[in-house]
Amino acid sequence: MRLPILDWGRRYDRDLMASDLVAAVIVTIMLIPQSLAYALLAGLPAEVGIYASIAPLVVYALLGTSMSLAVGPVAVASLMTAAAAGEVAVAGSAPYVEAALVLALLSGLMLLLMGVLRLGFLATFLSHPVVSGFISASAIIIAAAQLKHILGIDAHGHDLVSLAGSLAQGLSQSHLPTLAIGAGTTVFLFWVRSRLKPMLLRIGLGARMADLLTRAGPVAAIAASTLAVWALDLDASGVRVVGEVPGGIPPLTLPSWNPALWASLAAPAFLIGVVGFVESVSVGQTLAARRRQRVDPDQELVALGASNVAAGLTGGFPVTGGFSRSVVNFDAGARTPAAGAYTAVGLLCASLFLTPALYYLPKATLAGTIVVAVLSLVDLSALRRTWAYAKADFAAIAATLIGTLLFGVEVGLVLGVGVSLALYLFRTSRPHIAEVGRVPGTEHFRNVDRHPVEVDPRLLGLRVDESLYFANARFLEDRINAIVPGRDALRHVILLCSAINEIDASALESLDAIVMRLREAGITLHLSEVKGPVMDRLRRTDFLDRFGGRVFLSHFQAVTELGSSTTDARHAADGVGAQRSN
Amino acid sequence: MRLPILDWGRRYDRDLMASDLVAAVIVTIMLIPQSLAYALLAGLPAEVGIYASIAPLVVYALLGTSMSLAVGPVAVASLMTAAAAGEVAVAGSAPYVEAALVLALLSGLMLLLMGVLRLGFLATFLSHPVVSGFISASAIIIAAAQLKHILGIDAHGHDLVSLAGSLAQGLSQSHLPTLAIGAGTTVFLFWVRSRLKPMLLRIGLGARMADLLTRAGPVAAIAASTLAVWALDLDASGVRVVGEVPGGIPPLTLPSWNPALWASLAAPAFLIGVVGFVESVSVGQTLAARRRQRVDPDQELVALGASNVAAGLTGGFPVTGGFSRSVVNFDAGARTPAAGAYTAVGLLCASLFLTPALYYLPKATLAGTIVVAVLSLVDLSALRRTWAYAKADFAAIAATLIGTLLFGVEVGLVLGVGVSLALYLFRTSRPHIAEVGRVPGTEHFRNVDRHPVEVDPRLLGLRVDESLYFANARFLEDRINAIVPGRDALRHVILLCSAINEIDASALESLDAIVMRLREAGITLHLSEVKGPVMDRLRRTDFLDRFGGRVFLSHFQAVTELGSSTTDARHAADGVGAQRSN
Repeated sequence: MRLPILDWGRRYDRDLMASDLVAAVIVTIMLIPQSLAYALLAGLPAEVGIYASIAPLVVYALLGTSMSLAVGPVAVASLMTAAAAGEVAVAGSAPYVEAALVLALLSGLMLLLMGVLRLGFLATFLSHPVVSGFISASAIIIAAAQLKHILGIDAHGHDLVSLAGSLAQGLSQSHLPTLAIGAGTTVFLFWVRSRLKPMLLRIGLGARMADLLTRAGPVAAIAASTLAVWALDLDASGVRVVGEVPGGIPPLTLPSWNPALWASLAAPAFLIGVVGFVESVSVGQTLAARRRQRVDPDQELVALGASNVAAGLTGGFPVTGGFSRSVVNFDAGARTPAAGAYTAVGLLCASLFLTPALYYLPKATLAGTIVVAVLSLVDLSALRRTWAYAKADFAAIAATLIGTLLFGVEVGLVLGVGVSLALYLFRTSRPHIAEVGRVPGTEHFRNVDRHPVEVDPRLLGLRVDESLYFANARFLEDRINAIVPGRDALRHVILLCSAINEIDASALESLDAIVMRLREAGITLHLSEVKGPVMDRLRRTDFLDRFGGRVFLSHFQAVTELGSSTTDARHAADGVGAQRSN
Repeated sequence: MRLPILDWGRRYDRDLMASDLVAAVIVTIMLIPQSLAYALLAGLPAEVGIYASIAPLVVYALLGTSMSLAVGPVAVASLMTAAAAGEVAVAGSAPYVEAALVLALLSGLMLLLMGVLRLGFLATFLSHPVVSGFISASAIIIAAAQLKHILGIDAHGHDLVSLAGSLAQGLSQSHLPTLAIGAGTTVFLFWVRSRLKPMLLRIGLGARMADLLTRAGPVAAIAASTLAVWALDLDASGVRVVGEVPGGIPPLTLPSWNPALWASLAAPAFLIGVVGFVESVSVGQTLAARRRQRVDPDQELVALGASNVAAGLTGGFPVTGGFSRSVVNFDAGARTPAAGAYTAVGLLCASLFLTPALYYLPKATLAGTIVVAVLSLVDLSALRRTWAYAKADFAAIAATLIGTLLFGVEVGLVLGVGVSLALYLFRTSRPHIAEVGRVPGTEHFRNVDRHPVEVDPRLLGLRVDESLYFANARFLEDRINAIVPGRDALRHVILLCSAINEIDASALESLDAIVMRLREAGITLHLSEVKGPVMDRLRRTDFLDRFGGRVFLSHFQAVTELGSSTTDARHAADGVGAQRSN
């Protein structure tokens, strides 16, 4: 196992430590309310959020390769945890808490395994459009789910339809004091986010101080609303509060071995792990690029996997690198993963000394902080951008977005990946096939429909813009059958293979069929610009001996030699094999 | 709806009719035992096989585009029918017969729909290796399943494991007279197939007559064994016979509307239809090519779909074009689909007049004819051939073969398609990336590792042999990051895009990241030989304005212009946009 801490730890000095400590203080202030809020979002007791913000951060500091990633509970993973655990137990019950532990442990073990087997590339099948649509849809669902806390009513569901129905039913029972706290927090935090910083700067505060005060908005909201509930005795009148939070150091937890439970949580654990990994690496790489550093995806799998295992063993729930928190960490000056370890110390102090103060913290306040945090993740402009660029990418975003909103996180994610793969396969199954001619005065050949080029009626140059494989083999056959009839002067068809990266067994049979059919019409098939790997494989068959044409190093050479020959196809075919060694 | 009969019917004359009639007689002789045997294989009463060989053939004659395809019950579809119907009812019961009708009707409607929507290309996702592995495995299972009839014992299962277990249990109860008949038939038919024809030719018979006598082998075996059972009263001593077969014209049957049943049979019906279609079209195209005719796959979907609907409405079960029967039809001189209609008349006569004679026909004889017929479909040499050509194709065959043998037809087929698609995606996710140099004296660029080429240390030409899409976007990033460091003279990276057929939204973000990283190292990225469709799409974004490099029509032009410039990257970047219109 690699320990990246041995690399940066050697260069660690007082300066780096000072930077990291400042960043850790700011992130701690941000993480305390977030850890409570995301535990609430996941349907878990408040202390689970705090526990998940201690051991995993220390583990990531030892193993991670990003110098600025802030690991801990995040909104999307919390929603996915709620959806998965809700399938096997009642929210808040002991089996539910256990399910969350199992999810963390399982997704951690899966990420570790992927890291050890260097399977990080699997995550690339979650395309940008799918991730973008998924995050937006999740954020909308999360915000909607918080409405029950803000309204002080009961509601259930992990998709928009069931949530909306459930909320509509309960709407009339809204609890006004709760609503006042929840809506107040939300409005206050939106104001802090959009207006406070410019105002502070205008009254002469330094940029850093203004930033810190802005970040402390949620803490201020929590303090104020907790005091209000305590002073006005609002919990007695029905405002739901966090209540007793067991503090102290995180407990050692080993989820009991329950094969049926583990099996039913395996698929969601995989999705939670992969989504968390993709998000985390993309944030990590973006921040690393700004300082010309590198993030190693395979090592990140190990680091995030171990962090989740740590979460599962210390009373937590699934964690990953959070977007906004990492940006804050970076902006606040974090220079090494040690900042995360210092943050863990901050959270440990909170767990030891702060929990009694959380008794009167209203859930509506936490809900407000979640709403403000997640709505910034909604990016519907991606729909418009991808619509303009590529319809397939648009379809992938739209499918993920709608699938997630209507049927929940797992269906949405699987649907998005399925749609993007199916569309890719569909496109490659009907490739672009261009007839090419020579750009005058050059040795270069381009599409006759797009460029002014020279063509010889005895020759037909076809460029297939795709590898030939089972899904498109017959398509080429049909196209050649459609183009050839009616061209009476035609003697040679030259397949320009510059875009053909592979010819599989099905496509080879199809080429045989093409050769046979052309031969009946007195036309010879030739290949040009066949790539090395493709040629290697063709040499292992007898295709080159029996297809009757020649293989040319360049299309220019093919056109020159075949075009200058005044004889017919039968003569040209005598040259078979002459160019075999290119 | 197209009626191909209107094309060939206009040219139909006495000569064509004579040819078709001769072929029909031979195919009828072959089809009578086959229709009974495949009904037995499907677990259906004997008459169902005869009914399935009447109306569907007439319908195909009206709609089909192959001049030689012989439609009717076939071994693989019968096995798939048995597997699917066996899931919902007990073999031989009335609901089981109804399930077979529903399978025919449903798969027919699905094929019709695919034909009308021109979705024939979907069948191309069943690659040659998958079909080959599937047919071989099915043939092995079918042969194994016949052992119970040959041994005269009870056994169940539609995969090799359960069949073997079931057979082993019953082995000790083998019924010797049955075994004598079954084994005798099998040995006799193998002898007929391999030895009889050469022998007949040697004693001076004409080739045609020798062929006809060889084809009549199964009929002879049936006649002899039926007579033996009748004369020796063997059915009383336990030899199982076909028994009462209701003859007459096929009944009109309309499967009752049972949504739950239809839903549970939808997936197998789809697989039966698609596998039948793929087999049928491949046989039809092979035979058509020999006479320079064409088969239209979309019209074949309609024709086979309608044939199956006809089978479902006239007491039959799923049908398709059979391989060996079509070859016989072709060799016997069939010139138009009318031969199929004449065959249907032959089968109708059999149904009207022959059924009483079938009473004493032993099932063991039918089992023997099946074993001999299907074992010729097993082609394990395909494993060796594909292993030599391409490991991915080998993996697809092996997965289908093993999956089908161990878990049955549906799992095997789905596994095979899944493996071939996954391997295709895996390969495209890690594309071949070659550094290219100029072939001396030409404008042609090839891999530096394979060809003696010229390179300029200030330039790096990279050819990516794959479209850039989400699954491989990061792979290119990683490769460039790995190649560039250490090349101090490097000023320009030129991406030779001749094999890039698409750049999707994820890959575009990745290109942005590459540009940013190269720029930090003082290197400019350029593109060359970008194809029309890719360029069109890039123009719809602002990538071309912000990426800082140039787009060259040919790689030669890029190398010439960038190489001749003695200035550094910053200067060269001034030319941005100059070549934008190519």
